Formats: sequence, structure tokens, C-alpha cells
Amino acid sequence: MNHPTPKVPVPTLERMATYLACLTDLNEKQVQTISSADMEQMTNINAAQFRKDLSYFGEFGRPGIGYSVPELAGRISTILKVDREQPVLLAGAGNLGSALAGYPALRRENFHIVAAFDTDPDKIGSRLWDLDIHDIAQAPAMNRALNAKIGIIAVPAAAAQGVAETLVSAGVTAILNFAPVSLRVPAGVAVRNVDFVQEMAVLSYHLAG
Amino acid sequence: MNHPTPKVPVPTLERMATYLACLTDLNEKQVQTISSADMEQMTNINAAQFRKDLSYFGEFGRPGIGYSVPELAGRISTILKVDREQPVLLAGAGNLGSALAGYPALRRENFHIVAAFDTDPDKIGSRLWDLDIHDIAQAPAMNRALNAKIGIIAVPAAAAQGVAETLVSAGVTAILNFAPVSLRVPAGVAVRNVDFVQEMAVLSYHLAG
Repeated sequence: MNHPTPKVPVPTLERMATYLACLTDLNEKQVQTISSADMEQMTNINAAQFRKDLSYFGEFGRPGIGYSVPELAGRISTILKVDREQPVLLAGAGNLGSALAGYPALRRENFHIVAAFDTDPDKIGSRLWDLDIHDIAQAPAMNRALNAKIGIIAVPAAAAQGVAETLVSAGVTAILNFAPVSLRVPAGVAVRNVDFVQEMAVLSYHLAG
Repeated sequence: MNHPTPKVPVPTLERMATYLACLTDLNEKQVQTISSADMEQMTNINAAQFRKDLSYFGEFGRPGIGYSVPELAGRISTILKVDREQPVLLAGAGNLGSALAGYPALRRENFHIVAAFDTDPDKIGSRLWDLDIHDIAQAPAMNRALNAKIGIIAVPAAAAQGVAETLVSAGVTAILNFAPVSLRVPAGVAVRNVDFVQEMAVLSYHLAG
């Protein structure tokens, strides 16, 4: 993460998103109240850790009663700002971009990919699900109307830095980067990296023999 | 990570994979020697951190000279066990599974998806790139010959726990899980989770307003 004043630890934020996913499920099942021990069982995250994570954001739950599922889900949604529709620009309309644009869970959590871009002339002008694929150079002009603050980079490594700069110039301040490179971005732009090869290498290290 | 004796911190392992990706690029460009300051510039990881990470694994580099690129790349490859072909079972032949099976960087780093599985009768028997899609129930029988220790789970959340148990019974001891659930696995089985919605929620938190 690049961020000027990271008050809440990033692992806490990651766990908050996990709690929310769990609470959303419980809400759909009409569960009204849960304890921190229930949460531990569902998320495999220690109950004390759960209580500590919540304490960054105020007072939650009632001693001896527990947590109201709809209330806690609502408050975490507001904290993570996933209680509102969030437009997202997708850069990269290859296999991974297609999988992301077609991923129902993103839409369910209010992340709405509103435009797809690529640098490949063969892709520009064709379709990705219900989206037209535009030239990445058009992102700044198009985003004046779309006003997306989040961008996803799913282009090859060699193109990623240039694409990041275009997204930032389009007004994006948060980037989910799937390209296996360290992006250089201005202060105030948050980046999270997902690197499949890195994940596999860490698993590989843990293999016996 | 679930692992009985995690001696080396996981963030160190993650950074080792980043160093290796960088060194592999340098090697291809025939660069012979680098300094920790060079590494810092390329990876955005502090030079002192780089030296500390390496120190978990022995002595590297020579004072005043730096690090031999081919030697360091080779040693990190061996440490992460990516110096050998690693067969991988893929569970889930949807959009994400297709993106993973078609991702050239995995193959380049010696991760070889050798079999694809699904639970959906409509997918079983069809093809994913150059692979036949098999019923996940066949994984234990098929893996007696394939001997894969790494599995990727790219199935919907509701199917993921059952698929994990099948992969473990097939002999898999390391799982990369894309389903947004906490998997319960036996001790000695390593799990890494990649959750796109969680990543987006952490970014969303950092948006202004």
C-alpha cells in the first residue's frame, strides 16, 4: 500500500473485508445475532483479534448479547465504503480482464466495472461481456463522465507502468495491479498488488523435499 | 498460511519471489552484477530489507562488488523450489480457471497445470486450452500418476471446502485458493488466499470522501 497516513493497519482492513463477507452471508440467512466466538469459527480468525480489529472503528456489540448481524454488516460496509456503488475502470481485456469483468462477486459488493480499455489494436473496438473495449488513451476523457476512482490493471508487465500513469491522469486514486511489476505512482495513490506467480512461489517454498 | 514451523516470515518469502522476478529479467538482459541499491530502485523494496531478507538463507554477495545476478537468481530459485518443474492441479474451469491455465508467466516459472477439474457436469468432458476437464472426484486417482503437490481452487465459494478436501485426499499439500472462504485443512497443508473482493474493499477504504 502507498498511502500518506495509514492509521489502520492494512491486515486489519483485510480482515474487516473478511468479516463483512461472512456477515453478508449470515444476513442473507436471516441470522440476527452472533458472538465473537461464532465469528472465529466461521472465519478462522481469533475472536480477540476480531474484537481488536473492530476497536479501531469505535464501539460494537453488547456484552453478553453479542453483535447484531445487520447492524455490524452495515457499519463495516460504511467503513470500507462498499455501501455505495463504486465505478471501476478495467485496463486489460485479455483472459484475466475477462474473468474479472465476468466475476459476479465484485458486482454484488457494489464494484461496477464501467469501462474496459486495452492497448492492443486487435482488441480495441471489440466487446468484453457487455462493455466496449476502448483505447487506454481515451481513459482520461471518458472518466470525466464516469468519475471512477478505482482502476484495475490486468495488462502484461511491460505495459503496466504506462497504463498506471494513464489511469492516474484519468483521476484514479486506487489501483489493483495484477501485473508482476512495482508501479511508481504519486503520493496519495493507493496500490495493491496481486501476483499469481509470487503466490505460487511462496506455496512452493513450503513443499517438502 | 497454515504451516507447522514457519521459520522464515511469509512477507520475506513474498519479497524473495519479487527479487527473483527482478533477477530473472536482469538475467535475460545479460546484466552480470547488481547492488542492493539497484534492487531497491527496481523493486521499491528498501535495500536494508533486501539484505535482511537474504540473511535468512545464508551469505550472499561480496562487499564492494555486489551480487552476481545469475548466482543470486539460481540460489533464490533453489530456495523457493522453482528451479524444478512443479505440476499443479487446477480445480475450476470457469473464467478465472481459464485465465490461470492460459497465463504464460506461471509456465515460465516452472508451474505446470497438468490437469483441470470441475464439479459442473456441463464443463466435465470439454476442454480448457490443451487440457481435458475432469470430474473433481477423479483427482485422487489421476494424481497417483501426476503426483502434483500444489492445487489451485477457482470454484464458487459454496464448492470450495469440498474441493479442498478432495485435493488434499489426492495428495496436495499446498493450495492457492481464489474462493472467498476460509478453508479448513489438515495441519501441514499450506493455504494462500487471493480474494479479489477483499482487495477491492481495502482499496475502497482508502478513497477520499
